Amino acid sequence: MLKTQPVITLITDFGLQDGYVGVVKGVITKINPSVNIIDISNNIESQDIFQAAYVLYSSYAYFPKGTIHVVVVDPGVGSKRKVLCLKTKDYLFIAPDNGVLSFIAAREESPSIREVTNKKLFLPEISDTFHGRDIFAPTAAHLSKGFGYKDLGKRVIKINEIDLPKPIRSPRGVLKGEIIYVDGFGNLVTNINRDMIDRLKEKSENLVIVVGRRKLDKISNSYADVGVGDVVAILGSSGYLEISVNHGSARDVLNLKKGDKLGLGYE
Amino acid sequence: MLKTQPVITLITDFGLQDGYVGVVKGVITKINPSVNIIDISNNIESQDIFQAAYVLYSSYAYFPKGTIHVVVVDPGVGSKRKVLCLKTKDYLFIAPDNGVLSFIAAREESPSIREVTNKKLFLPEISDTFHGRDIFAPTAAHLSKGFGYKDLGKRVIKINEIDLPKPIRSPRGVLKGEIIYVDGFGNLVTNINRDMIDRLKEKSENLVIVVGRRKLDKISNSYADVGVGDVVAILGSSGYLEISVNHGSARDVLNLKKGDKLGLGYE
Amino acid sequence: MLKTQPVITLITDFGLQDGYVGVVKGVITKINPSVNIIDISNNIESQDIFQAAYVLYSSYAYFPKGTIHVVVVDPGVGSKRKVLCLKTKDYLFIAPDNGVLSFIAAREESPSIREVTNKKLFLPEISDTFHGRDIFAPTAAHLSKGFGYKDLGKRVIKINEIDLPKPIRSPRGVLKGEIIYVDGFGNLVTNINRDMIDRLKEKSENLVIVVGRRKLDKISNSYADVGVGDVVAILGSSGYLEISVNHGSARDVLNLKKGDKLGLGYE
Repeated sequence: MLKTQPVITLITDFGLQDGYVGVVKGVITKINPSVNIIDISNNIESQDIFQAAYVLYSSYAYFPKGTIHVVVVDPGVGSKRKVLCLKTKDYLFIAPDNGVLSFIAAREESPSIREVTNKKLFLPEISDTFHGRDIFAPTAAHLSKGFGYKDLGKRVIKINEIDLPKPIRSPRGVLKGEIIYVDGFGNLVTNINRDMIDRLKEKSENLVIVVGRRKLDKISNSYADVGVGDVVAILGSSGYLEISVNHGSARDVLNLKKGDKLGLGYE
Repeated sequence: MLKTQPVITLITDFGLQDGYVGVVKGVITKINPSVNIIDISNNIESQDIFQAAYVLYSSYAYFPKGTIHVVVVDPGVGSKRKVLCLKTKDYLFIAPDNGVLSFIAAREESPSIREVTNKKLFLPEISDTFHGRDIFAPTAAHLSKGFGYKDLGKRVIKINEIDLPKPIRSPRGVLKGEIIYVDGFGNLVTNINRDMIDRLKEKSENLVIVVGRRKLDKISNSYADVGVGDVVAILGSSGYLEISVNHGSARDVLNLKKGDKLGLGYE
Repeated sequence: MLKTQPVITLITDFGLQDGYVGVVKGVITKINPSVNIIDISNNIESQDIFQAAYVLYSSYAYFPKGTIHVVVVDPGVGSKRKVLCLKTKDYLFIAPDNGVLSFIAAREESPSIREVTNKKLFLPEISDTFHGRDIFAPTAAHLSKGFGYKDLGKRVIKINEIDLPKPIRSPRGVLKGEIIYVDGFGNLVTNINRDMIDRLKEKSENLVIVVGRRKLDKISNSYADVGVGDVVAILGSSGYLEISVNHGSARDVLNLKKGDKLGLGYE
């Protein structure tokens, strides 16, 4: 019987010019020639752990069961930060212990986590500057060939986490949220999700969203609910409230960026 | 006997930072783990239907018979625009009905077109903002596994088309064309093709091309026909007249962009 | 027995917008549907032969034995420049004869080189502007299917080479080197390697590196050896001295670029 081809995904801040991503794929392919390597993103902003965590969080669940997700956004490379392998029901994640797995650890029930220390898996020479090549890639490749998760290293109980900034609820019932991610289309992803809005909603009726200099009075289902060039609020594909412009870029039209605030309430 | 691995190509305006392309590949791979996914371009300018149509047109015929070409440049996502599947002798194309298939429909003889409406193929939850993930990807994956084209949905007779701007021929026999595409090297692709030039040629002899502030007096075979840094006109690899600079960028040297005009005539 | 899937890598200056890379992969896949194509970099600066040579040099050895490395940074396309195939113990390289293979030819012992002239391998129509598609891609694909290296064309004795600028040693024993490559993280790769430093070291003891307006007094093992935001000198993953900033970009902090000088000596 034909075995399904194992999948390894990559999220890195290597960019696509220098050949670093190619080298990682070379190392993986040398160890396991039949693996299917899929790029999620190699264009994470240099050393932007939050962005990598968000992109991983919004992507990982769409991959086949058994997929090994490798994240190398690793400003602490060469320091004493751990390399982690987190195991959930369906996936393995290999990443530095810098918070990049926070949202996965928060969403998944009782994940098991181990420190990756088994030197048998690594390249023979380990640099202190390119663990993506020397540690992450060969570890993922060996796991994809059936190497046992439990033999990676010791169990880890507590990992470093970054917090998603939480919306603040004012005494008058207004949610003060912020923009946590701006995508390539200029869509502004906020930290306000469906549950938060539903809880507010019970209180009153007329919705008001204030973002930049605009007031919006509803949450729409699609960009096409407003005219071309108009601003629209949508519960986006990742479950969070997003501010967009139909046929345009909300980032450009509203001149807003990551960290900028917005308010949402019922009048 | 070994079956050939089916090929799915992608043309999108998703960019490579956000993980959207990775998610599309995850969805495809989950449904058909043995498919070969090849990126044609995921860096189409946001919502630039013309650019996507041109890149598809100049690329599709180089792929193996049976390839499924998926185009997700889709500013109308969530509106009532149709999702189309166009079938030619050698290929299937899945794309929104926004004109992105115009050049294919014009070149290929009597293509068959169907609207993609068979919900059995889609992801269980369909967002109104990311049909690439929820509709296009799973439809392509199922087709690559042998799902029947005819079961996608009803036949479509008329699709939306965009027109390639046509060169205008002046009474004095001068062709007035324009730049329709500027590639990454700064080559200026025009809307003047070999046939048009051949028809003019019968009339007289001495060719003159006026582009920006330059006059050229011949069409060359290669960049190396002129000196380093010089401007050259070539019938490019896609069949259209291109203006280039040997070892340089015609965009930068001539300071021209898409939509700018050029003239071609015989004196 | 299962044969290992052959690997073809790509280094080009095509960029990722125009679909040229996709076309090259289409041509390869049409000839050999079971090949594994891995991008090393398609974002080499337009026509930057040195950059392509450096990226190839720092990447190629991490790929499986038998890998075919294809380099299409080819400003002389359509001129009389040769297309080369260089064979080493473990790899094949296909590239224009413009110096892009210099570092490979210098490092590998007695490589065999042939000119690629066997037209049976090429696409039926050969443009003078896109040999990546018409010559390099089909040649690589046929080689990956077992076509014999010796049947490509005649032996070549001498190829065009570019020189890595060599550090100059002053009478007072100071090495004057320069920055030869700046990567996407802003790391500054110099032309000073471990051997050169070791030879100097015998002479005296206290190291001084002068780069931009900074003086460094040691070579560290990892970025984490200095504080966040501080400048650090490291023998990088490619064997050359690199100047970096912990959690930052040396390019931005020092405001330096390719070609800028640095000094290294012992006091």
